Amino acid sequence: MKQLQEKIVSEGRVLSESVLKVDSFLNHQIDPVLMDAIGEEFASRFSDAGVTKILTIESSGIAPAVMTGLKMGVKPVFARKSQSLTLTDNLYSASVHSFTKNVTSEISVSKDFLDKDDVVLILDDFLANGQAVLGLLNIIEQAGASLAGVGIVIEKGFQPGGKEIRDRGIRVETLANIKTMENGKAEFFEEAMVR
Amino acid sequence: MKQLQEKIVSEGRVLSESVLKVDSFLNHQIDPVLMDAIGEEFASRFSDAGVTKILTIESSGIAPAVMTGLKMGVKPVFARKSQSLTLTDNLYSASVHSFTKNVTSEISVSKDFLDKDDVVLILDDFLANGQAVLGLLNIIEQAGASLAGVGIVIEKGFQPGGKEIRDRGIRVETLANIKTMENGKAEFFEEAMVR
Repeated sequence: MKQLQEKIVSEGRVLSESVLKVDSFLNHQIDPVLMDAIGEEFASRFSDAGVTKILTIESSGIAPAVMTGLKMGVKPVFARKSQSLTLTDNLYSASVHSFTKNVTSEISVSKDFLDKDDVVLILDDFLANGQAVLGLLNIIEQAGASLAGVGIVIEKGFQPGGKEIRDRGIRVETLANIKTMENGKAEFFEEAMVR
Repeated sequence: MKQLQEKIVSEGRVLSESVLKVDSFLNHQIDPVLMDAIGEEFASRFSDAGVTKILTIESSGIAPAVMTGLKMGVKPVFARKSQSLTLTDNLYSASVHSFTKNVTSEISVSKDFLDKDDVVLILDDFLANGQAVLGLLNIIEQAGASLAGVGIVIEKGFQPGGKEIRDRGIRVETLANIKTMENGKAEFFEEAMVR
């Protein structure tokens, strides 16, 4: 998605060969016009998938998920992190390890909002090691729901998550797939190569 | 806002005289069509206020804030909770006590996204004791920014936060202001009474 790649180049800050800061438009301050375009793009890419529900994780997945939900006419649900898990009888839950922060947190989704009749589109802001997506896949399995695919705003294509998920036969649509961040600059895979 | 009040009556669950669950459309599963209408409503109510920035708190404030930002042509910023505060030199931060969860958390906003030239609209999903809004007001003061007002999706008008904030001369626009939740049913103040 050209508009997103240009935004990453103009506003993103490459802090190291693996750390990209996009807090001016995606995960702290949010550019709502860009989110609107992202929602349109995901809705277009998954228009044939029969999606009935979007599943994301708080907090940075919420803005793209809400915009995509609006365009597709389906409701997003965001998994909650660090839910107190003393009452788990009405929750699906899974563990998600963050390599960036080196913490493992529990994520949970109420059983009220996901069931075996759902066809789920997973959406998230970043895909790097894939732990968040694997946690959401686990929750979808617990619900007995079907998976339409995974939509990712920014993929760090040089990290292993994307390959691991695609190797399971899962459809992954990435709007900006970064090949390398060497020399302080993000370079992208051509879209045709990753779709 | 009639559409919101009807949604609260039809889908909200009154769990006690002070606890209202709205996780089917606002703070777990999200109704994007309702969020779109909420964004339109806030944009209309604050159209004369010269807003340059929307400030909210993760996670449940994000969806209404993004939609309002899209309608107003301004960017929302969400304050982060429990930020590791070892590096505070580029952050505004404040403490927020949650009476519901009985925990105090730090919220923080990068100095990159809020400064003295900003006219800020605070948005949040709930107003009860007002602690979240007070924390955001503290951050706006630290930035030297101006305040346009406070927009609240659901106010528990029988709790003290709204009065405390209005008593400071701050404009508060509430889309659904609950008078009482006795007998398992939410009843609302008339809009004219609270505006």
